[in-house]
Amino acid sequence: MTETNIDQRLKVEAAYPFAQRIFVAAGLPEADAAIVADNLLQADLRGHPSHGISRLKVYCNRIRDGFVAREPAIHVINETPAAFHLDGGHGMGAVVADKAMRMCIRKARTSGIAMCSVRAGTHFGIASYYTMQAASRDMIGFACSNAPAAIAPWGGIVPMLGTNPFSMSVPAGKHRPLVFDSASSIVARGKINLAEIEDRPIPLGWAIDQQGRPTTDATEALKGSVLPFGEHKGYGIALMIDILSGILGGGAYGPHLGPLWNNSETYQDLGFFLLAIDIASFRDIDDFKAQIDQMIDEIKASESAPDRNEILVPGEIEFRNEQYNRKHGIIVGAGVLHDLDELRRELDLEMNLAALLHSA
Amino acid sequence: MTETNIDQRLKVEAAYPFAQRIFVAAGLPEADAAIVADNLLQADLRGHPSHGISRLKVYCNRIRDGFVAREPAIHVINETPAAFHLDGGHGMGAVVADKAMRMCIRKARTSGIAMCSVRAGTHFGIASYYTMQAASRDMIGFACSNAPAAIAPWGGIVPMLGTNPFSMSVPAGKHRPLVFDSASSIVARGKINLAEIEDRPIPLGWAIDQQGRPTTDATEALKGSVLPFGEHKGYGIALMIDILSGILGGGAYGPHLGPLWNNSETYQDLGFFLLAIDIASFRDIDDFKAQIDQMIDEIKASESAPDRNEILVPGEIEFRNEQYNRKHGIIVGAGVLHDLDELRRELDLEMNLAALLHSA
Repeated sequence: MTETNIDQRLKVEAAYPFAQRIFVAAGLPEADAAIVADNLLQADLRGHPSHGISRLKVYCNRIRDGFVAREPAIHVINETPAAFHLDGGHGMGAVVADKAMRMCIRKARTSGIAMCSVRAGTHFGIASYYTMQAASRDMIGFACSNAPAAIAPWGGIVPMLGTNPFSMSVPAGKHRPLVFDSASSIVARGKINLAEIEDRPIPLGWAIDQQGRPTTDATEALKGSVLPFGEHKGYGIALMIDILSGILGGGAYGPHLGPLWNNSETYQDLGFFLLAIDIASFRDIDDFKAQIDQMIDEIKASESAPDRNEILVPGEIEFRNEQYNRKHGIIVGAGVLHDLDELRRELDLEMNLAALLHSA
Repeated sequence: MTETNIDQRLKVEAAYPFAQRIFVAAGLPEADAAIVADNLLQADLRGHPSHGISRLKVYCNRIRDGFVAREPAIHVINETPAAFHLDGGHGMGAVVADKAMRMCIRKARTSGIAMCSVRAGTHFGIASYYTMQAASRDMIGFACSNAPAAIAPWGGIVPMLGTNPFSMSVPAGKHRPLVFDSASSIVARGKINLAEIEDRPIPLGWAIDQQGRPTTDATEALKGSVLPFGEHKGYGIALMIDILSGILGGGAYGPHLGPLWNNSETYQDLGFFLLAIDIASFRDIDDFKAQIDQMIDEIKASESAPDRNEILVPGEIEFRNEQYNRKHGIIVGAGVLHDLDELRRELDLEMNLAALLHSA
């Protein structure tokens, strides 16, 4: 990105109450607004602005249009000793998934492993938001969600599968937890959405247009297909996530899901799959953590390629981003700032956006 | 492969009892010999000769050298309502993993989901062998195993993680089950082992040598590192599989695991992670299968790229291979045939290898 001069930085301690107030004004209960605001800010802090405060507007539009329930009737459809099936009642994805992961963690304490299949959900933000909760409670967490069709099957040119994100987090001892978080596509579709908002080109190799030709135009890419990561393997993973997240719970998949963006007509009807494994059911938790620390130390100490100066482990760059962004503020582009101001006026809130800006 | 003229085909109905007799002669109980022979032949049938009868010799060498227990003391270390921790007693991987998946399936019937962490295992062959068992019992199956270090971490040049295979299978209705089965590397390391046995070059892009340079020499590649699929994402997946399969169960990971090949000194000490999800705990199984059928139909009916004539779903090519190979025999190269004959003589078995060959 050569246009960083048009990016500004928002103070986290100001952006968080701003986002929460916006959500409350949009009609969410106070506690739910806090969860969604936290979820978005976490994404910004960790260096994924595509999933951060840039989504405030589209989230609020969805509430306004009646396709995200302000006070959803989240309820358990069926329950077994280690699994449960949750209806999200079209509530805010982060509220529903947060509840589901908490229930998984509670259940896993006695059953060793617990999973939740969620139907009638909406966009849940970054998947690692939930798996890190499991890790902070000495569990291994896994989470995935389906998403509206954006990836063409390998060998095809029509989007049939979502960019289906999946995350796994593992607690460590002296080190920060290992946090894997990835889309099934080469990049999260949100990065292409953000490029469109900011009117920036995308790198070649991320997407194909409607005729199957490689493109650097974000708008053409959004009309076409994002490419799966790892060729046919990423395609297979996207497909399996669509089944685990959607079809298992009685939901839909790819082409039958409603888009988040530019959609004032349908529910999203997303599904999630969340899982927690209680490490202490298998071995002493301190021994486990010590061994994870050793693994991290050994990998990082192994010889790096001549063109690299260090080897990173999953989640490491995000923890560094978080440290930096807490101090220096989170990045927002001019397009997002404009969106936020428009939203503030729509919701009739007297707030000074300039007060959010980090002094340079 | 341009050298197919040196490949021969073995009749499956003859190869199976041959493999079983070899394993019994090597000291395995009859029932265990049947499982391992079936596991290898399934790999050959499905078109993965790298994991098939070509491994008969190395498996038997490991038994002979005392690093695979003939009659392992497989036992449950700990058990919760939905999880159990199994010690494989260094038995044949296929015997141990088969038992573990059966237990997962049984437990999942009442708990909705069940998982098993296995320690003290040995190479378990193709991961889909176990997940397909779950699918055939109307469950979603997942299985993964760690493997001796072969992949360099992203940005590194020293192998620190295994090619860690993972598989997931899902039952369908009128269609064959969806079977995803993949190594965390661009290709299974077994394909490079087989290239070495058959003295064939490997494609560029599969591996780097000890100095981190791309290589087409199988031997150099085996001394160097296989590349992860999907760059840093495959690296992250390999690392997470190493934790789930190995460290969770109190086992080791990558560099601390014993190789299968050219190793007459140490146990392998591999770990597995197996999981079964009972679909009926979430929704009507026939509805589920009908929706999977619809998904398969829709994906296959979507427009294919100009250079492709059809879109495949995970496992489809393998089912076609199986149909073809059942009729025409499984492929073996001259190097493998030589190994089999040597093995037969070592075990003092009067068998005519020529009788196994499929008449052209």
